[in-house]
Amino acid sequence: MLKKKGSILSVREDIRVLDCTIRDGGLVNNFHFSDDFVRGVYETCVASGVDYMEIGKNNSPTLMSEEEFGAWNFCKEEDIRRIVGENNTNMKIAVMSDIGRTVKEELLPKEDSVVDMVRIATYIHQIPEAIELVNEAHAKGYETTINIMAIAKSFESELDEALEAVSKTPVDVIYIADTFGSFYPEQIRMLTEKYLKVAQDSGKQIGIHAHNNIQLAYANTIEAMMYGTSFLDATISGLGRGAGNCPLELLVGFLKNPKYKLRPILKFIEEHIVPLEKELDWGYSIPYMVTGLLTEHPRSAMKARAENDTEYEKFYNSLLDAQQ
Amino acid sequence: MLKKKGSILSVREDIRVLDCTIRDGGLVNNFHFSDDFVRGVYETCVASGVDYMEIGKNNSPTLMSEEEFGAWNFCKEEDIRRIVGENNTNMKIAVMSDIGRTVKEELLPKEDSVVDMVRIATYIHQIPEAIELVNEAHAKGYETTINIMAIAKSFESELDEALEAVSKTPVDVIYIADTFGSFYPEQIRMLTEKYLKVAQDSGKQIGIHAHNNIQLAYANTIEAMMYGTSFLDATISGLGRGAGNCPLELLVGFLKNPKYKLRPILKFIEEHIVPLEKELDWGYSIPYMVTGLLTEHPRSAMKARAENDTEYEKFYNSLLDAQQ
Repeated sequence: MLKKKGSILSVREDIRVLDCTIRDGGLVNNFHFSDDFVRGVYETCVASGVDYMEIGKNNSPTLMSEEEFGAWNFCKEEDIRRIVGENNTNMKIAVMSDIGRTVKEELLPKEDSVVDMVRIATYIHQIPEAIELVNEAHAKGYETTINIMAIAKSFESELDEALEAVSKTPVDVIYIADTFGSFYPEQIRMLTEKYLKVAQDSGKQIGIHAHNNIQLAYANTIEAMMYGTSFLDATISGLGRGAGNCPLELLVGFLKNPKYKLRPILKFIEEHIVPLEKELDWGYSIPYMVTGLLTEHPRSAMKARAENDTEYEKFYNSLLDAQQ
Repeated sequence: MLKKKGSILSVREDIRVLDCTIRDGGLVNNFHFSDDFVRGVYETCVASGVDYMEIGKNNSPTLMSEEEFGAWNFCKEEDIRRIVGENNTNMKIAVMSDIGRTVKEELLPKEDSVVDMVRIATYIHQIPEAIELVNEAHAKGYETTINIMAIAKSFESELDEALEAVSKTPVDVIYIADTFGSFYPEQIRMLTEKYLKVAQDSGKQIGIHAHNNIQLAYANTIEAMMYGTSFLDATISGLGRGAGNCPLELLVGFLKNPKYKLRPILKFIEEHIVPLEKELDWGYSIPYMVTGLLTEHPRSAMKARAENDTEYEKFYNSLLDAQQ
C-alpha cells in the first residue's frame, strides 16, 4: 500500500523541479525561439530556484533539417553557451535525446559541455537503443533519465519488462510520461507505485512529465509527488505541445521549500508570455480534451486548432470512427 | 481511513450530476442570458443525462434590483416555465437561495412550482438562518442542499459545529464548496472524510462544488467522488465566476454510467460557447491563480481581468501587502 511522503506543509529534500519550457514549447514553434526568450527562461529559472532547465533537444543535424527546425532542436554547444555561458549557477542544464533522431557519437564528453543531464525519450520498442544511449551518456559523464513514452497504449507486462531492463542500467531517473495527457490521478498513483518499486530496488529516483489534455497536468504532478516522485517537470504557463504541461507557476506556488520563488516567473509571464499568447496556440481546449479522453495522440487536435475548426461534435465522431 | 468507493471503471448508482451553468455563469454577466441560451443549456442537460439543472438564484426582487440583474437572478415561476414548460423529463430543476437575499415566504409550495430542489448558500455565521430556510423549503415539499461557503477561512472547530447543526435538519445534501478555488486534492479528501462522517450518521449525502483558480476544479471533483461524494457540480466549458468551475464535458467524459452522453455537450459548446467566449471572460488565468494560492476572494482578480491588467508581479505584491 502506497504511503504519502511528507505532508502538504513539509519540505521534501528529494524534490527536483525541471523546467522544460523551451524543449516542450519548441514542439509548438519548431524550436524557433529568440535568444532573448531563451535567455529570459534561463534567468527566470535560476532566479526562481528551478533545479534543472531542459534547453532543447540534441537531435542530429544529419537526421533533421536545420532549415525547418530552430537551434533548440539541436542544442549545439556554442548555441547553449551563447545563452548560459559557463552556467555558473546552482541550476543544471538538461537536453533531451529522441531515440532515432540522435547520433550517440555526437555527444561531447561532459568535460567539454555545459550540459549536465541527458534525458532519453523512448518508445517501449526502442528500449534496447535507449539503453545503449544511457550507457554512452553515463560513460561520458552525464546524469541521465529515461522517459518511456506512450505507456497508456502499452501492455502492462511489456512496461514491466521495460522497467526491469531500465533498472539494470546506470540511469539516474525513470520518468512516468503521460504522452497522451490521458491519465487520471488514480492511474498516476498506480504508476507511481509501479515505478517506485523498480527504482527504489535499484537505487534510482522517479519523475513525472504530465500533459494538460484533460486539465489534470498539475493535479497528476502533485499526486505523483505526494507518493514519492522526486523529479517534477513543468513549463512556464504550461507552454508545450498541444494542451501543454504542468504550469511551473502552479508547481512553485505549491512547493513549500523557500528556495522556490514565484515572483520571477510572474514577471517573465507578463513580459514574455502575454505577447507570445497572441502568436502561438497552446493549452487546454476541447479538441485536446477529446484526444485525451480517447487516449489518442494530439496531432489531430493540433490540426483542428491550426485550422480554427470548432466543429467539436464532428471532430469527436471522426476520432471515434478512426478507432473502430 | 477513507476507502475508495468503486473503481475507475464502475458505475456508481449514487452519483448525481448537477449542472449550474446558468447559476454560476450568471455571476459573470449578472444573469443576462438570452432565453435561447438558457433553453439550449436545458435541452443539452436533458440530452446528456444530467440529473439536476440549477437554473439560477431565487433572490427576492425586494432585495436586489431587477434593472441590474437578469431574470435568472430571481427565477420567477413564469420565467422558468417559459424555458422548461412542465419539465416532463427525468432531469430535476434546482434554484439557489443566498442567505440574506432570499425571502423565505416568497417560496411557492412545491405543488405550484416546477422547481424540485432548493440549494441554500450560506456563510458559517448565517447557519441559523440557513436552517430556517431548509425547514421552510422542506415543509413546502422541496429537496434541499446546504452549501457552506468560505470554509477555507473558517476555524475547523466552527465548521464541525456547523456540520453538526446541519446534520440535525431535514436537508438532503451537504456540499463541500471551494469558494476561493484554493483547495488541493489532499484537503478535499480530508473534507470528504469529515463531511461524509456527519452525513452518513444522519442519512444524508454530500456534494462538491469546485472552482478552477489553481486548475484543480476537475481533479478535486473526481477526488471527492472517488471517496464517496455523490452530488457533483459542473458547468458547460467551466462557465462560472472568475476561473470558473469543473467542466461538465470533462466530468461526463469520465463517468462510466452509459446514461451520460458527451455529444450534446460538445454540440452546445460549438454552437453557444464558442461565440460567448468572444463576449465574456472566464476560466483559469494568472490573477485567479494568485488569489487561489493566497486563499483570497477572486474579486480583485476579476477587476484585473476586466481592466486587462497583466502586471502580474505587481498584482501578486498588492495582494501580499493586503494580507499583512
